[in-house]
Amino acid sequence: VRLDDETCWARLRSRSHGVLGTVHASRGLDLVPVVFAVLGDDIVVPIDTVKPKSTTKLQRLANIEHDARCSMLVDHYDDDWAQLWWVRVHARATVIDPSDAQRAALAARFSQYTAASSVASAIVLHVESINGWSAA
Amino acid sequence: VRLDDETCWARLRSRSHGVLGTVHASRGLDLVPVVFAVLGDDIVVPIDTVKPKSTTKLQRLANIEHDARCSMLVDHYDDDWAQLWWVRVHARATVIDPSDAQRAALAARFSQYTAASSVASAIVLHVESINGWSAA
Repeated sequence: VRLDDETCWARLRSRSHGVLGTVHASRGLDLVPVVFAVLGDDIVVPIDTVKPKSTTKLQRLANIEHDARCSMLVDHYDDDWAQLWWVRVHARATVIDPSDAQRAALAARFSQYTAASSVASAIVLHVESINGWSAA
Repeated sequence: VRLDDETCWARLRSRSHGVLGTVHASRGLDLVPVVFAVLGDDIVVPIDTVKPKSTTKLQRLANIEHDARCSMLVDHYDDDWAQLWWVRVHARATVIDPSDAQRAALAARFSQYTAASSVASAIVLHVESINGWSAA
């Protein structure tokens, strides 16, 4: 039922989207859907210029500046609950201008990020713990 | 791009699973996948005896007892980013012995909950705000 670390990382690498949670002083926490690429032991979450948004001054970035603690969950849902699984990390987040390797990892994963201008910045999750669960 | 409240609720009612975030004193927050049913303006999240788990003394319940603030995100991912949408609530959570109406709402939604013994307790999210976004 519990997944070992290696399996958790393999499942993370097999997926491209999850839910990122960050700490908000008054609301407690904020959740946003994110896409990501795994690069070594880091998870790279783009702040892109592709998906429509009113601003790139996103609340998630303000939250991270105030408190670097975050968590990301990748989960697989199926009406057949024997197929359920999820992987979760707890991490410290930093907001950076992505390196060439990080941009390349995102572009390799998402055709939408082929143009360098499509990624404005990135949140890097420095993973502190990973765990996962599978029904099967 | 922004969804109005009525559309947000309609989309919540059309879905059956999401990600619940609760506040954790030292880790900042915890995320778990959940199933749910909408009943009026509340969201009912079962603590079930169906999905394999080592205990029903779940961390999410300890978190809620310590801090009732929570958030739930329901999101739709697609490789075609023109299809993306999500709905998010911020809420106060209470842990209860579900009422007959709440048990019926869960059983109507999930065949796995037909037997009364399948739901041990429930987290009720008293929604304080709802918002949503759609790419289309």
